[in-house]
Amino acid sequence: MSHPRLLITLGDVAGIGPEIVAKAWPELVRPARPVVVGDPDWVERAVRWVGSSARVQAVSHPNEARPGADVIPCVLATSADLRGIEPGRISAAAGTAAYDFLCRAIDLTKEGAADGIVTCPLHKEGLRLAGVKHPGHTEILAQRTGTKEFAMVLWGDGIAVAHVTLHIALRDVFAGLTAPAVLEKARLLNGLLPRLLDRAPRIGVAALNPHASDGGLFGDEEARIIAPAVAAGRAEGIDVSGPWPADTLFVRADKGEFDGIVAMYHDEGHIAMKLRSGPRCVNITVGLPIVRTSVAHGTAYDIAGKGVADAGSLVAATDVASRLAASRAMR
Amino acid sequence: MSHPRLLITLGDVAGIGPEIVAKAWPELVRPARPVVVGDPDWVERAVRWVGSSARVQAVSHPNEARPGADVIPCVLATSADLRGIEPGRISAAAGTAAYDFLCRAIDLTKEGAADGIVTCPLHKEGLRLAGVKHPGHTEILAQRTGTKEFAMVLWGDGIAVAHVTLHIALRDVFAGLTAPAVLEKARLLNGLLPRLLDRAPRIGVAALNPHASDGGLFGDEEARIIAPAVAAGRAEGIDVSGPWPADTLFVRADKGEFDGIVAMYHDEGHIAMKLRSGPRCVNITVGLPIVRTSVAHGTAYDIAGKGVADAGSLVAATDVASRLAASRAMR
Repeated sequence: MSHPRLLITLGDVAGIGPEIVAKAWPELVRPARPVVVGDPDWVERAVRWVGSSARVQAVSHPNEARPGADVIPCVLATSADLRGIEPGRISAAAGTAAYDFLCRAIDLTKEGAADGIVTCPLHKEGLRLAGVKHPGHTEILAQRTGTKEFAMVLWGDGIAVAHVTLHIALRDVFAGLTAPAVLEKARLLNGLLPRLLDRAPRIGVAALNPHASDGGLFGDEEARIIAPAVAAGRAEGIDVSGPWPADTLFVRADKGEFDGIVAMYHDEGHIAMKLRSGPRCVNITVGLPIVRTSVAHGTAYDIAGKGVADAGSLVAATDVASRLAASRAMR
Repeated sequence: MSHPRLLITLGDVAGIGPEIVAKAWPELVRPARPVVVGDPDWVERAVRWVGSSARVQAVSHPNEARPGADVIPCVLATSADLRGIEPGRISAAAGTAAYDFLCRAIDLTKEGAADGIVTCPLHKEGLRLAGVKHPGHTEILAQRTGTKEFAMVLWGDGIAVAHVTLHIALRDVFAGLTAPAVLEKARLLNGLLPRLLDRAPRIGVAALNPHASDGGLFGDEEARIIAPAVAAGRAEGIDVSGPWPADTLFVRADKGEFDGIVAMYHDEGHIAMKLRSGPRCVNITVGLPIVRTSVAHGTAYDIAGKGVADAGSLVAATDVASRLAASRAMR
């Protein structure tokens, strides 16, 4: 399967989703057979904003799609009226539509009409106005695919980061930090990375405290929690080491010493990855029965509709989804 | 004063200090009139290791020094016998000597024989074996200059980072985080940066929690501590803003939006700066009555004596010390 069939959901149409799809399109058809799940009218608007000459092909099912560098097939996947929506404005209609796009993409992928999903950003507040209970994409994906255990991996330019704790206060990180949780993230990277690298990955585990606590001088989580988890991972045959001081670990990974990093908290991983790979960062949802990647940015309402948004994350997300879908097909 | 007189202390001679001095020398004489405070024999060894053709000029006082691209003046500043020391080996003699070098440099600078000090790394354990009570350079400098209030600023490629908390366990950060402490670091950067930039600096204050707590969703330190400190700084006329999410703040600074960053904890600042400026990072000690900068790395015992160490940090530290000394002279 050299060209996996991927569904690209438009997300919140008042955000930058439509224009990054229009802008990135010629690069999306290289690794994949992409089909937009959204609203053909909004794709057409975006095509004009970015000055593209591509044609939008409205289809009722991905099977009818004939994607090409100058043809953007789009399934109309909502009955919400999106004509009155303005770029950069929160609305219930855009929230409803974003939810509809995602649900249709999930159902199409589950029934075998596609090999994976790449999602453009939605707006939490729009979703809430639409009466959707879930706070974001991932929770909807988990519920609709009956998934209990899932995790987000941040990917950029050859490095994958799994976070032991994520969207919680820094103060609450300590309660969430356990050896089993650290080990689980190392296992997760060890399972994911061969599908992206075609070899056994080298995983580095970040310390929690500065200088990895300098031998216990400031903090004991390295000795008490992280080192035992690393030892357990090695005993399972995983090429994992650490805990390493976080400020040099990412430098070493950047130079090629590690493929995967287990970070203890959100900013420990995100500061490095945003600085290093910025607009090429991708979120990968691991644990779902279907392939799903996402752009690693939000709706960017402040610049939506101007055609200036950077489409790099969507290009990277599509590339990663293609590789994951291909590796899944080969298994 | 276009060429400030700077003293370069050798640090622990078993570390990479001597060889980075020998390697960097031609670049050190460009912004400064540098004189090594250390041991001429060890500088000569290092000159051979790095394949330099420079001559070492043994002097008893900096006044006699005639530094040039091919002349390295060195004040013999210890009575410790350093002949038996091997690169990469901890020893009391090297610790004693490192302490002697620093004390002599401080005294020479205080008496007006130099405009500032740039320090090569010493080894904490060597210092301890030598019976020195202080854990490092900065404490010795503070004590010998009668300084109570001082702080370290991490500098790299045009960005300065001041940390509200530094070498403490992450768990203890919360107790050290107060609005006055945050404000003090903003003031400190606001005082320092004009001397390096020749204009009023723009300062960004990092959040503590991921996404700057997303409006209080996870964590309240942004609203309770950091925002009031930023408001107080603005009321004083400082161009300071925040709290900003840490993972995007450094990207914005890197693009030129900020000159100074107040970080809440060690790794928040160090992950970004090590990744971005790596071997060009410099430590600046602020609050001393004398100019002092330092390389931002350690003794690197594992590669000492091989002549392969990167001298970039010493070059940058000398450049920064020159600018600080020149700005001080102009005031």
